[in-house]
Amino acid sequence: RLPFSRVTEEDLAFFRSVLPGRAVTDPDLLESSNQDWLKSVRGSSELLLRPRTSEEVSQILKRYCNHRNLAVNPQGGNTGLVGGSVPVHDEIILSTALMKDIRSFDSVSGILTCQAGCVLEDLSLYLEDRDHIMPLDLGAKGSCHIGGNVATNAGGLRLLRYGSLHGTVLGLEVVLADGRVLDCLATLRKDNTGYDLKQLFIGSEGTLGVITAVSILCPRKPRSVKVAFLGCDTFEQLLKTFQLCRAMLGEILSAYEFLDSECMRLLNTHLQLSNPIRDCRFYIVMETSGSDPTHDEEKLHSFLEAAVTSSLVTEGTVATEDSKIKALWALRERITEALTHHGYTYKYDVSLPVEQLYQLVTDMRGHLQGRAKSVVGYGHVGDGNLHLNISSQAKDPALLAAIEPFVYEWTARHRGSVSAEHGLGLKKRNYIYYSKSSQAVALMGQLKALLDPKGILNPYKTLPDEQ
Amino acid sequence: RLPFSRVTEEDLAFFRSVLPGRAVTDPDLLESSNQDWLKSVRGSSELLLRPRTSEEVSQILKRYCNHRNLAVNPQGGNTGLVGGSVPVHDEIILSTALMKDIRSFDSVSGILTCQAGCVLEDLSLYLEDRDHIMPLDLGAKGSCHIGGNVATNAGGLRLLRYGSLHGTVLGLEVVLADGRVLDCLATLRKDNTGYDLKQLFIGSEGTLGVITAVSILCPRKPRSVKVAFLGCDTFEQLLKTFQLCRAMLGEILSAYEFLDSECMRLLNTHLQLSNPIRDCRFYIVMETSGSDPTHDEEKLHSFLEAAVTSSLVTEGTVATEDSKIKALWALRERITEALTHHGYTYKYDVSLPVEQLYQLVTDMRGHLQGRAKSVVGYGHVGDGNLHLNISSQAKDPALLAAIEPFVYEWTARHRGSVSAEHGLGLKKRNYIYYSKSSQAVALMGQLKALLDPKGILNPYKTLPDEQ
Repeated sequence: RLPFSRVTEEDLAFFRSVLPGRAVTDPDLLESSNQDWLKSVRGSSELLLRPRTSEEVSQILKRYCNHRNLAVNPQGGNTGLVGGSVPVHDEIILSTALMKDIRSFDSVSGILTCQAGCVLEDLSLYLEDRDHIMPLDLGAKGSCHIGGNVATNAGGLRLLRYGSLHGTVLGLEVVLADGRVLDCLATLRKDNTGYDLKQLFIGSEGTLGVITAVSILCPRKPRSVKVAFLGCDTFEQLLKTFQLCRAMLGEILSAYEFLDSECMRLLNTHLQLSNPIRDCRFYIVMETSGSDPTHDEEKLHSFLEAAVTSSLVTEGTVATEDSKIKALWALRERITEALTHHGYTYKYDVSLPVEQLYQLVTDMRGHLQGRAKSVVGYGHVGDGNLHLNISSQAKDPALLAAIEPFVYEWTARHRGSVSAEHGLGLKKRNYIYYSKSSQAVALMGQLKALLDPKGILNPYKTLPDEQ
Repeated sequence: RLPFSRVTEEDLAFFRSVLPGRAVTDPDLLESSNQDWLKSVRGSSELLLRPRTSEEVSQILKRYCNHRNLAVNPQGGNTGLVGGSVPVHDEIILSTALMKDIRSFDSVSGILTCQAGCVLEDLSLYLEDRDHIMPLDLGAKGSCHIGGNVATNAGGLRLLRYGSLHGTVLGLEVVLADGRVLDCLATLRKDNTGYDLKQLFIGSEGTLGVITAVSILCPRKPRSVKVAFLGCDTFEQLLKTFQLCRAMLGEILSAYEFLDSECMRLLNTHLQLSNPIRDCRFYIVMETSGSDPTHDEEKLHSFLEAAVTSSLVTEGTVATEDSKIKALWALRERITEALTHHGYTYKYDVSLPVEQLYQLVTDMRGHLQGRAKSVVGYGHVGDGNLHLNISSQAKDPALLAAIEPFVYEWTARHRGSVSAEHGLGLKKRNYIYYSKSSQAVALMGQLKALLDPKGILNPYKTLPDEQ
């Protein structure tokens, strides 16, 4: 149904003329682009293109891929978790790795404009020197690209405070399947001239167009950042602590994350990270960011006193200096890594009403009755986003059959989303109906047909087989 | 080219059966729905429909309007400023006035779900009792509907702090032109299952679908709100004061608005509102919202001291009690009203890089050389959004010819937007090319054709005559 690439010598000669020295066919060099970070999906592409400009991307698509029906897999830092960032068969890989220019930064408005291939951490460091920060942060920051972040509508650790990319992204430059360059790269906070086209591409996983540049609103760097690591005995206490914290910390609260005791065990075992407080059933990583260190300190102190006095929190530690802050954050950010050492992992990323967030983990444990090596829960409490991870020694079809569709049915029953922030990619696309109506999916299909009539952009991703 | 309504007795019988007592044909009752708030545009509709449910809206569109090619003008509170909210000819008016149910509010997550016809101020009062606020606020709050706010992507006074509706709206229920009910009414902060369809309808001015329900993320009510009214001698000082204020007030800054001395004169003359400080060239209305009154007081005090010491601000007054806060806000919110008493007003609403914000007013005064009764500037400094208003005794085609296209060319030259928050509606749609590329406008046309192939929804709005 969908086009495969059939790259001939003539095709190659064209790509080499457009991208001298940047049309890669060496199988060793292609290896890391064919496989995802989790090593769960592998494609067999024989061609990796590394354009530097949107004009080059346009030429590749217009004069060639769309014309010749050659399927293309747009790829950023290849840190996705749902198989969206690698080819499924032999699609041509179109990498943004060489599109790393920062075009402008306005320190009055805080608006940054850059190419899609800029690494998130590089942008953070660039802004750090200019008294600003990126509005998003995530564990993969060292390798993920901003273009990929936007294409997958990445959530991460700062969403609670700065909101989603649908609000902070101000403009996009996108190359459409037929090579047209769509310039929506506004650098204005407000613009109501017609439909907000850029929104279509935020979260579309490269299936509607190739994002080549981004403009984004960056908050000022907070003068004071503090992190508290707290322990609770029950999830109910953890939620009550969240309520207390919203009330008492208000505008300076910038993250409220959690992990369970099983996560802590994996961090200890596989990464030798030690627990900074005594053992508890649940842990909170909480961050404040504000403009006045004394005020922030007072607010945090009052909150902690209230949380301890009311026995919501059993123990805790606070960090204000950078190295200790990083160490506390590592306990949250490195869980994914610890899991990769633990065995084969079945990963789920769901949104739920916050009251039901942990019940899914408990119910899953009961449902599996010890058949898994471990069932762990962690995630973004403030956003109602649970990461549920189930490990086994190796791939285990019987275990998978016990997990799915149980996990999706449970989520749908509680009106949650079966993909909160990871997207659908290759692996989750056929579960879309658990969270979206058939009317909605049909309209998505119509949008795909409108923007990419030949289906050359990231085929087999996002949309389900049956529409 | 576009369908007119040709309402027959048979049609009327159908509408009366679906909406007993709510299919209005009395010309007196239709009067206020045919004319916009500014009295600048008047339609000649003979039928006003007042559905209560999305099912009724669906029946009206599916079984009748789409089938019979009857054009429809969706209408909320009819407070729009660009002629988008009234019929142009004899389109059927589809009012959301009776869709006023609040469906749910979750005080843990702050997520409100309600029908499209809820009046913004009613929602604010409802939330007030529940310790939350709406993430948007605007002068028209007493009559505008939340559905209309979303359809026009309303900006307003809180955007600086809480961001745009593209970020705060979590879900929409939309009836499409053919009567299909699109249920995207999620109540989750994160959901990456497929394309984010609801974004299409935010800011599409009723041309792609009729919004019937909204879910929206509401911030907690701040424990302390303070407003300062300050005077500056130059716009450069006003901008420097903004920079100082972003640095010193940080996370508690919730609005930074301005008006010029000419606005103050109109407020004095037409509404008898007096200036609370001595005369200056520019005035700032600045608001802080925070969770700790003492901390906020300290921050505001330090900022004011620094602003006065460095001679950025020449005079000022601060309000902490509700009635004085309202009085200070009135000086900003009632400028539009004062202008309606001043004569015929040509209204412009542009986004610009903040450094150039007032230069347009100065240049326009120079360009018109006294031909206008007055040229005033006010707006949302924090968002780079200027409201430029030019008054004359009565409609004056020669004056208009001097203003346009000058104002649009000036804005385009500075890479601004010719409509920051008012939208395009009927009056501004043909200026879209000053801010959008022909590629982008063409794609908008394709989206319109996909979602409303017969063009029955709010015809003559948003999209330009020539595509």
